[in-house]
Amino acid sequence: MSLTPIFAAVQEASRQLPALSDARINQVLEAVADAALAQTEHILSENRKDLARMDPANPKYDRLKLTEERLKGIASDMRNVASLPSPLGRVLKDNVLPNGLHIRRVSVPFGVIGIIYEARPNVTFDVFSLCLKSGNACVLKGGSDADCSNRAIIGIIRQVLEAFGLSPHVAELLPADRESTAQLLHAEGYVDLLIPRGSGELIRFVRQNASIPVIETGAGICHTFFDRTGDLKKGAAIVNNAKTRRVSVCNALDCLLVDKERLPDLPALCAPLQQSHVLIYADEQAQAALNGHYPADLLLPSVPESYGTEFLDYKMAVKTVGSLEEALAHIRRYGSKHSESIVTEDSGHAARFCRDVDAACVYVNAPTSFTDGAQFGLGAEIGISTQKLHARGPMGLEEITTYKWVIEGNGQIRK
Amino acid sequence: MSLTPIFAAVQEASRQLPALSDARINQVLEAVADAALAQTEHILSENRKDLARMDPANPKYDRLKLTEERLKGIASDMRNVASLPSPLGRVLKDNVLPNGLHIRRVSVPFGVIGIIYEARPNVTFDVFSLCLKSGNACVLKGGSDADCSNRAIIGIIRQVLEAFGLSPHVAELLPADRESTAQLLHAEGYVDLLIPRGSGELIRFVRQNASIPVIETGAGICHTFFDRTGDLKKGAAIVNNAKTRRVSVCNALDCLLVDKERLPDLPALCAPLQQSHVLIYADEQAQAALNGHYPADLLLPSVPESYGTEFLDYKMAVKTVGSLEEALAHIRRYGSKHSESIVTEDSGHAARFCRDVDAACVYVNAPTSFTDGAQFGLGAEIGISTQKLHARGPMGLEEITTYKWVIEGNGQIRK
Repeated sequence: MSLTPIFAAVQEASRQLPALSDARINQVLEAVADAALAQTEHILSENRKDLARMDPANPKYDRLKLTEERLKGIASDMRNVASLPSPLGRVLKDNVLPNGLHIRRVSVPFGVIGIIYEARPNVTFDVFSLCLKSGNACVLKGGSDADCSNRAIIGIIRQVLEAFGLSPHVAELLPADRESTAQLLHAEGYVDLLIPRGSGELIRFVRQNASIPVIETGAGICHTFFDRTGDLKKGAAIVNNAKTRRVSVCNALDCLLVDKERLPDLPALCAPLQQSHVLIYADEQAQAALNGHYPADLLLPSVPESYGTEFLDYKMAVKTVGSLEEALAHIRRYGSKHSESIVTEDSGHAARFCRDVDAACVYVNAPTSFTDGAQFGLGAEIGISTQKLHARGPMGLEEITTYKWVIEGNGQIRK
Repeated sequence: MSLTPIFAAVQEASRQLPALSDARINQVLEAVADAALAQTEHILSENRKDLARMDPANPKYDRLKLTEERLKGIASDMRNVASLPSPLGRVLKDNVLPNGLHIRRVSVPFGVIGIIYEARPNVTFDVFSLCLKSGNACVLKGGSDADCSNRAIIGIIRQVLEAFGLSPHVAELLPADRESTAQLLHAEGYVDLLIPRGSGELIRFVRQNASIPVIETGAGICHTFFDRTGDLKKGAAIVNNAKTRRVSVCNALDCLLVDKERLPDLPALCAPLQQSHVLIYADEQAQAALNGHYPADLLLPSVPESYGTEFLDYKMAVKTVGSLEEALAHIRRYGSKHSESIVTEDSGHAARFCRDVDAACVYVNAPTSFTDGAQFGLGAEIGISTQKLHARGPMGLEEITTYKWVIEGNGQIRK
């Protein structure tokens, strides 16, 4: 089945949105939050149908599961998005040229944003609210595991849209099959931006196959370099926080680099990790330093695959380096340009690290676990970009707008 | 032959550039300008080899041809780029968070920019200077027609780079064959951004096939709407300037929309076009209004193909519309989201037009011929984006930078 008529309907619906005031958008978002709570039972009963089809031992089960508590959190997140300043109509440049032309660069919606995601029904509410707040219509392609939940949620959203006199096509949920993904990747002229959220495999597939503009989100292979002058107390807290705050997220620490002069401090640096039973893959020198100080059953020799791996688990590699230069070279080779940190009291090294590490987020004396839209003060986050085009790192509302040039004249002509 | 070793060498070379000061970059650019003039004879003799292989009747011949005069212009353009403010190190956001983290968003180079272009050897100098000024290395894939010229130019650039102790791989010219293009489109992990410049066919091919981030440049199907309240004198000058200033460029007018109430003024509105022998494809009402007032041999009935065509010639369509809404609908259907203009004295209509036309550049009482980096005060232009991701409309130096987040702490951890 060709989805072109659906894409065309969403595009048509998106054209209503620039005329909506921010106050009106916020009313819609508040009303969707209200409806989500009022229809909690309906959503949960549809969610149970999805859950019944999944093995509770599947790690996706917990992410698929909605509860009354989680729906309250979702509604509260939507009200939070409503409370944020509008990302639209910002005047990014404003000049009067010598010929009298008044030229402004003004933020505007993209139009239609496509999102491909996996079995997390909360994303449906989340993405809709960020898209609407930024004046965009959205085409959602959710995971088949969550299809009953997603249909229930989109149904509620569309009831509210219609109650406000808006086209229900402002939010469209595609059939949860591969054919939908294939067509969405080539929705040229209809979908202005595509954001895949999910596994590395999904994102790779999108990058390889899309012919419309894409923002990649995804893998973080994150390092922390404990420099020759690093403060041990700060370092131990930073490493522990970066590794163990939440191991399943892309900003979690994967590899600790340690200056060889500081090997005697490695046991203290790693000591807090014992509490979380972090398994360490250490190179020969680091292993010698840790031996007898770190639980033997949690200490293994590193192998080549220990480096450049995103563990998403209570596991970490440790690598000894001879200098800042060696640390930079290791990060260049194995990092994924997501988040990298240095622990140092040497301001020259800090500056070199910030300049020479090519990553979305570079940290001095702070853990990579801060890479997050809310932590960065963006108010909300639609994803963390791992590409350099358009947006890098955490993306908030501003990052899902584009701009137009508005030029006002009085009959000037170009020589 | 695999080009991966070349891509890797360019990437390696690009890592030298963030350490270069703007003053040093400018010295390199000045030296390349000097070398281009000093080696004029060499460049022209290589250019003659390319010219000898092309029929002088070919419209590309003039664009391929270099002269002493043109080289002087090229050198002067390079010095102009050197004189512009650096686009690097701009602090785009700067906050101290409640936890004391100092977070800044700072402009940085992309790294490696790939450019695919056709038989215009001046582009080789042009693109190199914009990339170097913005701290980027470049991988160039020029047209085979200009290969001798391009080889001579890149040779001169690389002599200068080496004289300054820089890697010659900062500027790389790929073999001028299709295989190079194919490999460049998939240089994942090596090339951070690809900008195709040239025919619609080339750009379509790149969009369909690239798996690395692309900024499309290209076609402009541009309209001017003469509104019910449009000033006739301004309108006649604007239409004439937009159509005839240079017909071969993407910002040239393709279709004049005229409010039906102003049909009696159509002859005066189009009168200046006679001088340039502009051929008009008019709908029935417009033709009736022009009959006897516009040279009969330059007046033809419009056909469906007259609309949505980028003429790049002394040709223009005219369409009668009943209202602003009809004009907006026509632009939505046939425009290419490049540049659109309204001639009106009604400020409400002007505001509606600016809000509802989805285009990179929207004009009020000024011709679309102003869509140009230099005219917009950007100092220089690497192309005109026709997509919404990252950059829209004329792209200057700032648009070929990205940013990184730099976060400085003092041992803070995330709760």
